[in-house]
Amino acid sequence: MSTTPEPQIAELTRLMRELTEERQWATFHDPKSLILALVGEVGELAELFQWLPADAAIAAVEDAGRRERVSQEIADVLLYLVRLADVLDIDLMEAARTKHAASLTRFPVDEFRGVAPDKV
Amino acid sequence: MSTTPEPQIAELTRLMRELTEERQWATFHDPKSLILALVGEVGELAELFQWLPADAAIAAVEDAGRRERVSQEIADVLLYLVRLADVLDIDLMEAARTKHAASLTRFPVDEFRGVAPDKV
Amino acid sequence: MSTTPEPQIAELTRLMRELTEERQWATFHDPKSLILALVGEVGELAELFQWLPADAAIAAVEDAGRRERVSQEIADVLLYLVRLADVLDIDLMEAARTKHAASLTRFPVDEFRGVAPDKV
Amino acid sequence: MSTTPEPQIAELTRLMRELTEERQWATFHDPKSLILALVGEVGELAELFQWLPADAAIAAVEDAGRRERVSQEIADVLLYLVRLADVLDIDLMEAARTKHAASLTRFPVDEFRGVAPDKV
Repeated sequence: MSTTPEPQIAELTRLMRELTEERQWATFHDPKSLILALVGEVGELAELFQWLPADAAIAAVEDAGRRERVSQEIADVLLYLVRLADVLDIDLMEAARTKHAASLTRFPVDEFRGVAPDKV
Repeated sequence: MSTTPEPQIAELTRLMRELTEERQWATFHDPKSLILALVGEVGELAELFQWLPADAAIAAVEDAGRRERVSQEIADVLLYLVRLADVLDIDLMEAARTKHAASLTRFPVDEFRGVAPDKV
Repeated sequence: MSTTPEPQIAELTRLMRELTEERQWATFHDPKSLILALVGEVGELAELFQWLPADAAIAAVEDAGRRERVSQEIADVLLYLVRLADVLDIDLMEAARTKHAASLTRFPVDEFRGVAPDKV
Repeated sequence: MSTTPEPQIAELTRLMRELTEERQWATFHDPKSLILALVGEVGELAELFQWLPADAAIAAVEDAGRRERVSQEIADVLLYLVRLADVLDIDLMEAARTKHAASLTRFPVDEFRGVAPDKV
């Protein structure tokens, strides 16, 4: 074994692949189904925030019970995203670094200071 | 500087925080707004797959142009998720490991072999 | 009162407005919160279909229990959408007729026969 | 022809069915694909509101250009929802009335006055 720690995205990819293979769930994990699963988890995350006043949302998550539920839903979104990237053979970390670099160029600091982009 | 590489989630968290602070976008990044942004990116991801036959989706992403667009949308989802976790002071990697471990217990191999869970 | 039946969208708009006003929920029903609620319901709908084979989904909804749950989630999406349109003072029926008419023009039959649009 | 006007949901159902049949799009309109299309439209709707301050969202939609875009996205969500209900042979109007009636019972006025439900 190497002494270099396994990169985090590789670790999660491996964990989700093992979970899937041991249960013979690969047949369920086509891209469209995984996106629907991702949508389900994003929906659960939205429900935890929907009726909170916008400026009270961060404080509300200091409550231990709500914090636990929010953590679980955020984790679910990440785990399905990692699984989707694995199924599509996309390097998630490289994709994220590339997209971030593109945002640096697309949103020059002088032009977008305090100005919301239509989309990042 | 340490010789230990920066963990990947910490790196993305730092990149998104710098992007935000340099542009003074923190005011836009309350949790509800970030979840809506996440929903927007998941929607763009869904649109890239919606009309593909389920069993043709993986092959379709071998096309370089589609692959590039899918990679960008998957990256956007990850970047907003990382930013949301940072704003909420949630350790995304720990949350994912904890949730994965819970799934191992919740879905025993013998009971769920080839059987789709209602939800993972 | 007129003998003309109340149009369906007007009826649902009125029902949701009464439900809201009687409970003094108007403060919760700003547009962003309603969209998050809509996302929550779409997520629940997605979860009911996520692991079904694409070509088995219609038959699966013939099961009475699943049919009931799907009906409820579809209804929830409609009710929040109607409420959102009301809050924004948008005529939902007129908007739908206008958008449909635009699709007729945008997707000429001869050009799109059997060809999936990127988006409708 | 009857002198009774066609109910609105029936009208939209018919319009979407004709649009689909004339273009031979039925093969694309399985439930999972339609839900992904719905997700895409909800995502576009979310993007129009994501960076607006919560209390400025209604006023922002008074701008004619934004109003037009919001109307289109709300219409798209409704049209795909109607199409999904048609494919599943679900009576959307009956489902909505039933769900509304259930909410009246589930959220008694005296108990929920000014109190956000976790979910409606």
